[in-house]
Amino acid sequence: MDVVSTRGEKEEGSEIPSAGELVREARAAARILLETTGSQRKEALSAIADALEAREKEILAANRRDLERATGITEAFRDRLTLTPERVKKMAAGVRTVAGLTDPVGEIVSGWTLPNGLRIEQVRVPIGVVAVIYESRPNVTADAAALTLKSGNAIILRGGKEAFSSNAAIADVIAEALDGRGLPAAAVSFVRTTDRSFVDDLLSLEGELDVVIPRGGEGLIRRVVERSRVPVIYHGAGICHTYIDADADLEKAERIVVNAKCSRPGVCNAMETLLVHRAIAEKFLPRLEKVLEGVELRGCERSRAFLSSAKPATEEDWAAEYLSKILAVRVVESVEEAVDHIERYGSHLADAIVTESISAAERFTRSVDSAAVYVNASTRFTDGGEFGLGAEIGISTQKLHARGPMGPRELTTTKYVVRGDGQVRD
Amino acid sequence: MDVVSTRGEKEEGSEIPSAGELVREARAAARILLETTGSQRKEALSAIADALEAREKEILAANRRDLERATGITEAFRDRLTLTPERVKKMAAGVRTVAGLTDPVGEIVSGWTLPNGLRIEQVRVPIGVVAVIYESRPNVTADAAALTLKSGNAIILRGGKEAFSSNAAIADVIAEALDGRGLPAAAVSFVRTTDRSFVDDLLSLEGELDVVIPRGGEGLIRRVVERSRVPVIYHGAGICHTYIDADADLEKAERIVVNAKCSRPGVCNAMETLLVHRAIAEKFLPRLEKVLEGVELRGCERSRAFLSSAKPATEEDWAAEYLSKILAVRVVESVEEAVDHIERYGSHLADAIVTESISAAERFTRSVDSAAVYVNASTRFTDGGEFGLGAEIGISTQKLHARGPMGPRELTTTKYVVRGDGQVRD
Repeated sequence: MDVVSTRGEKEEGSEIPSAGELVREARAAARILLETTGSQRKEALSAIADALEAREKEILAANRRDLERATGITEAFRDRLTLTPERVKKMAAGVRTVAGLTDPVGEIVSGWTLPNGLRIEQVRVPIGVVAVIYESRPNVTADAAALTLKSGNAIILRGGKEAFSSNAAIADVIAEALDGRGLPAAAVSFVRTTDRSFVDDLLSLEGELDVVIPRGGEGLIRRVVERSRVPVIYHGAGICHTYIDADADLEKAERIVVNAKCSRPGVCNAMETLLVHRAIAEKFLPRLEKVLEGVELRGCERSRAFLSSAKPATEEDWAAEYLSKILAVRVVESVEEAVDHIERYGSHLADAIVTESISAAERFTRSVDSAAVYVNASTRFTDGGEFGLGAEIGISTQKLHARGPMGPRELTTTKYVVRGDGQVRD
Repeated sequence: MDVVSTRGEKEEGSEIPSAGELVREARAAARILLETTGSQRKEALSAIADALEAREKEILAANRRDLERATGITEAFRDRLTLTPERVKKMAAGVRTVAGLTDPVGEIVSGWTLPNGLRIEQVRVPIGVVAVIYESRPNVTADAAALTLKSGNAIILRGGKEAFSSNAAIADVIAEALDGRGLPAAAVSFVRTTDRSFVDDLLSLEGELDVVIPRGGEGLIRRVVERSRVPVIYHGAGICHTYIDADADLEKAERIVVNAKCSRPGVCNAMETLLVHRAIAEKFLPRLEKVLEGVELRGCERSRAFLSSAKPATEEDWAAEYLSKILAVRVVESVEEAVDHIERYGSHLADAIVTESISAAERFTRSVDSAAVYVNASTRFTDGGEFGLGAEIGISTQKLHARGPMGPRELTTTKYVVRGDGQVRD
């Protein structure tokens, strides 16, 4: 135990590999993972889950060191940083869930035979080396490692400095469990320095590091996107809308709005702006105001005629990701005006329409260009677990490579395998 | 005609929109394209092909102005820049080919129903606004515009300064043909300035411009990758290998090597390095040398024992993209050593094994991490047309989003459309 925690905490000295060295070691590990079967990776994940439970005390001891060092942090931050026996068990259970997911590697995505007899298969393969740069929650260490290993990738983990000891301890347990299964420990590499220049070096390794996934607040994401030459997949802001159409069933509308705003206001898939068709505003808004207890309303002029408690909304409100019990409300003339508002102010994560009209629903789903578009359901379903993916490494709000909740499949790429019998090109 | 060419050549002045303005106009056009059907886009492409033929004279006149301005360029460059009546017809034919391809938009990539009754569909949709930055060939203007329009995207075209008038004339013809079909001319925007700072501005528009595709030499690609905050998809170098296994059919091996090296040495999918298993080197290499007439051979020490004309290969030769009639040759001990060589020196575009052994073929296809991996066929097939995609906007050597030849499908993304009946999250 002492050995592990000492290793976990070494921050300086000649033994810390450079970003280039770390990526090269990870790439060598990724090449070995290419030779593994799905069963081997599944068994390794089960071994990791067992090891996390068996070595709970070490992990909690490391976590206590982090908590002792952490002063002047908010209670919410301290809560995110804290591990308990239950949280370690939940972490292990999460790894077991990932172990049981469908293996994406080797899926034949498409295939055909050319007139000359060449057989083309587009096969799903691991991306290679994935770096995850994250903030305070130590459980990300286990979650991210499990998802990347499941899909045959090596991972470089760069956690926040507040959780340094906890992350290092978890990463050590994982690496040693891999080693115990005959797999390369370098498949899960934890960055043992909190020096920012290390991250800059990492982000410059285009062609060596395959992808960077920043997980955390807007500041972290901006920093990574602005500096990286390596492709980045990120989970951006969530300015989600619910539009109540003239043809909405108001009972469904009420239920969906309350769920989207109130069930967990601090998450990215919670609603921030409500759009209401002019024709039903008078009927719906007063009814809604009664059930949105404790929610601060900020409305446009027309909506305020029907909302006794709403303050005037400003231009900033339409673009705000409140992440709290505040709701912007706007009355619109039509589904087109609702779409225009969403395209102008939204973050393209998740947006919903409540309507019984097929043509309004079709118009909305065709024109709203978001990762997830809902008809008569809450935007809160935008989540890998809820979608049935089993787990997620994030929700991509980007359009390239992956869009929406990202599971093991989104941590793969494809290659073409072409089989012939001596064919040459004319 | 005069009007068109004047517009085509205005380079300076207050009328040139900024990069931000151009992208906003293109985005508005992309939103209109979202409302079009596949038939409408197909008919628009046919109209563009007709217009290119009908206005051949204007295009050739603009091309003559480019050729007159172009001094001190190589013959090869002048050839790439030159348009002829036949080349304009070929350009129109290329647009018609794209018009006839399968429409990727609206494909339901996957779909399922959750236990709570929510129906999830992952639907293929246009990416949005695509910028293509390219060099001297004016036909790229029509090719790239056709492929992006087919898949429902707006395109911003930034061509090389040598082809400025030709590109502008072609883009004008396309934009006017779109307008004639009731579609927004801004769906195909040609950048009417050759100022480099315009490109820098374009590359900073992350979140507004969806993707940048550089098409051209290594210098152009490096510049774009290093400066861009917008995601980039590029067509990198092609250091392609052919490995002749101990169990190769030497007749097939000879045919494949000659085709991969000699059929068109200047292209990315041509072979640059030949790897030969030690067990058949003595038999194969002298036989091969006879048929590789006019090819300069650069060999490792062991290969030179069987190649009378080969010069010694240096470390640089293994990493060289010759794009000419030069071939590096290395004798290896095993399929594993061949894979190691390819992973170390290759560019991961296309690599081939020639073997009759199933286990060698399996080992090679599993371990070589390239966009296309061949068994008993020439790497020269790595091409959208040869693959049966109908056309390509490039061959991605990257792993994210698209890998290998990119057709209309690779110019799309997906979104989730989730349909319910009032479901809310617990």
